[in-house]
Parts: sequence; C-alpha cells; structure tokens
Amino acid sequence: MHKKVQLYEGKAKKVFATENEEYCIVSYKDDATAFNGQKKGQIQGKGSINNRVTNHFMQLLEKNGIPTHFVQELNATETVVKKVNIIPLEVIVRNIAAGSLASRLGLEEGVKMSTPVLEYCYKNDALGDPMVNEYHIYAMQFATREELAYIAEYAFKINKILIEYLEKCNLELVDFKLEFGKDCKGQILLADEISPDTCRFWDAKTKEKLDKDRFRRNLGDVSEAYEEVLKRVFGQ
Amino acid sequence: MHKKVQLYEGKAKKVFATENEEYCIVSYKDDATAFNGQKKGQIQGKGSINNRVTNHFMQLLEKNGIPTHFVQELNATETVVKKVNIIPLEVIVRNIAAGSLASRLGLEEGVKMSTPVLEYCYKNDALGDPMVNEYHIYAMQFATREELAYIAEYAFKINKILIEYLEKCNLELVDFKLEFGKDCKGQILLADEISPDTCRFWDAKTKEKLDKDRFRRNLGDVSEAYEEVLKRVFGQ
Repeated sequence: MHKKVQLYEGKAKKVFATENEEYCIVSYKDDATAFNGQKKGQIQGKGSINNRVTNHFMQLLEKNGIPTHFVQELNATETVVKKVNIIPLEVIVRNIAAGSLASRLGLEEGVKMSTPVLEYCYKNDALGDPMVNEYHIYAMQFATREELAYIAEYAFKINKILIEYLEKCNLELVDFKLEFGKDCKGQILLADEISPDTCRFWDAKTKEKLDKDRFRRNLGDVSEAYEEVLKRVFGQ
Repeated sequence: MHKKVQLYEGKAKKVFATENEEYCIVSYKDDATAFNGQKKGQIQGKGSINNRVTNHFMQLLEKNGIPTHFVQELNATETVVKKVNIIPLEVIVRNIAAGSLASRLGLEEGVKMSTPVLEYCYKNDALGDPMVNEYHIYAMQFATREELAYIAEYAFKINKILIEYLEKCNLELVDFKLEFGKDCKGQILLADEISPDTCRFWDAKTKEKLDKDRFRRNLGDVSEAYEEVLKRVFGQ
C-alpha cells in the first residue's frame, strides 16, 4: 500500500489516501503543540514512539473486543488504518484529577476520582474545543443517542483494559483522550492515537509524569519520558 | 408563621428559619448581580415580582405533578417553603441558543435547538459555577444516579409545562435555570425561583428581551420588562 494524495494535516499527524479507498495511511510527526496550538515545539522521536505505542494498544483493544481503525504498521512512523469519518468529539476518560478536571472542580492534582469520569469536548479549534454534554451532542447532531451509547460503553471498557495492562508496566493511567469515527458501513471504530500525547501516564510509584505534560509544563526530559513509556509498554 | 434566625443570604434572596423546623421563609430582594457577582445593582420592584411569578409557576408545576418546595405566599416579597438541602447544581434547560450556549457552540443567538439541551453547573462561586456532566456529578457525589435521573426527568417535564403556558402569554421560553433540593424525607423537590432573574423570556413576536439580560447587557427598561412579565404571566 502506498501514500497518494494528502487528505489532512493535523498538529501531530498527516493522513494520506491510498490506492484502496477504504484505507488511509497515517504518518506521525515529531511536532508537538499545546494549549490549542499556542505552544509549539518538537519532541525528538515522538512520531515513531507514538506510532508504535498506538498500534500496540490498538491491537490489544481489538483483541479485547473493541473495533478499531488499525490495519497494519508500515514502518517506524506510518500505519495503514481504515478510513473513517471522525465524529467531532474528544472523548476523555479520567481516573485521577489532573489538568482541566482539577481546575474545573477545584481538586488537587492526583486525587483519585471515586468513579471514572467521562467527558466530551467538541473538536473545534476556533471555539477552543469546548466541553459539551450528551444533550449538546444530540442537539448539534454530532452523534445519535445509539452512537453515543456505543462510544461511552467503549470508552469505559477501553479504560479498564488499559488500566489493567498499564499496571503491569508500572504506569498509572491518569486520563486519556479518544476519538471515534464511522467507517463506510457506518460502524463506529476507535480511531486517532493512544500515546503519551493523548494520555497522562504517571510512574505508579514515584508519580513522575511520563507524558506530554512534560512538554506543556516545561519539565524537561520530554523525549526521555516518551522513550520510557515505549520501553515499559513493550515490556522492556 | 414568622421569621426567626436568618439561615442564608444569597445574591437575590434571604432565607429565614421559622418556628416549624420543616419550613423556611424566603424573602426576595431587589438586589441584582450578574457575571458571578462582578456587576451589581438594584431592579426596583424585582423582589415582589419574582416572588409572585415564582409562586405562580410553582403552583402550576405542582398541579402538573412536579413536587416543589412551595407552601404559601406570605406577603409581596415573602413566601413559606419547605426546608430542603439544596443539591449544589444549577440545572439549565435551553430551547434557543443564547448566552453561554451560543458562545460555547459558536451559534448565533436565537437559533432554535433541534432538541432541548440540559446542562448542569456546579454551584461554586469561587470556581465560577463550572459546567459539569453526569459523570462529574456521580464522582463528586453531588447526586446519585437515581436522583439525577429524577432531576433530568423533572427538568424536561417542567420545560414542556412552562413552554405551553408561556405561549399563551406571548412569551418564548429561551432557557431557564432550576435548583432542586432534598427535604427531610430525602424527596427531591423543585426549589429556588422561576423568574425573569433565572429565565430568558423573549416576546414571541418581536423577540424583545424581557429578563435579566436587560440588566446584564445594559439594555434599559429593566423594571419595565419585569413588570411586563408579571402582567403577562398573570394574564393581564
């Protein structure tokens, strides 16, 4: 399979058409952005780490009954995925208070939530990706009630699968962001990525941050943290 | 029934204990605030208008199967209500885009929503009453799943009853904010007020604003708008 015309360029990935209209090729970049694009930089090696970590998780989830867009890893930074229409929602699951959840609810970062929290944000840079709820989603017709029920069910199931896996890697899954899409048959598939760009991973013992917060908050050793996640996820 | 010790003073109301520990007396003030207390003023006659309009709606809702805290109107600005522990949520129903919904979703003010939108905000001035969703509410234990199901059901039912009533008053119900509380037996009751302070009322034909937006946005004729709502709601 080969890259044809570029369909899309996001902050961290490019997506290309292929000779098969049901498939795309995703190409991961080292570019990093934060705060809705206001902070920009590069994280050396990020593209290949996020590609490999994402594909590892996608296969783990697929084995556990979650339909995903994953097809085949092509090379260090590129992967064949099923073509989907992305549902314009960031689907966020939170186990521990951090980032915007901590500030929204006045919680100290690190407080464990009594039950996992699911949030939706409307993917819209001009509006700053505002948080929305199920009723906004129905009224704006971002997804139907049936589709959102699937998405919520998958999100909580993914959370369980990932927590269990990451515990063995000595990583705490603080929170993570998912995106879903609909394939040509209308089936809902997990899409996008699952990586230190889109998850908060803390060392289970030291609580050291091993994710994009190192970039957002200028904590240093950003590439090293991404490398560490790669190693642990691959059991090295 | 008589006012005893003052239990609470809010931005627009005071609440007093009575000789019966199951009842309180609410006393409405002419004070007006907006933008989380940043803007302050007085709206002449507001206390008595909001008291009368609220009591009228509470009785209408009670007749239509909504349990409310209303007991008896005492005088122009004071009413006996059942004592409740307020659930710390603003429960907002929106039929037409205005205010924060318009800015959140990038909609023009006045766009009719395809289906009513229910929102919850955590009543917390220090945090700026942030929007929360059902999962935040469960995790923070603001309400149980069962309680929130009641609240959502009541909110949509109240919306239908009020829309139908207000149509006859030539008023469009753009959106409104409710608060619920639990009485000594744990029953959920509609509490607080339903008035031009807590609802957006537009003239059905001219779309003239007849609510607190006249104060928030310095549109003038604030007292006159409140008077107009009173007249129309009472069928004069």
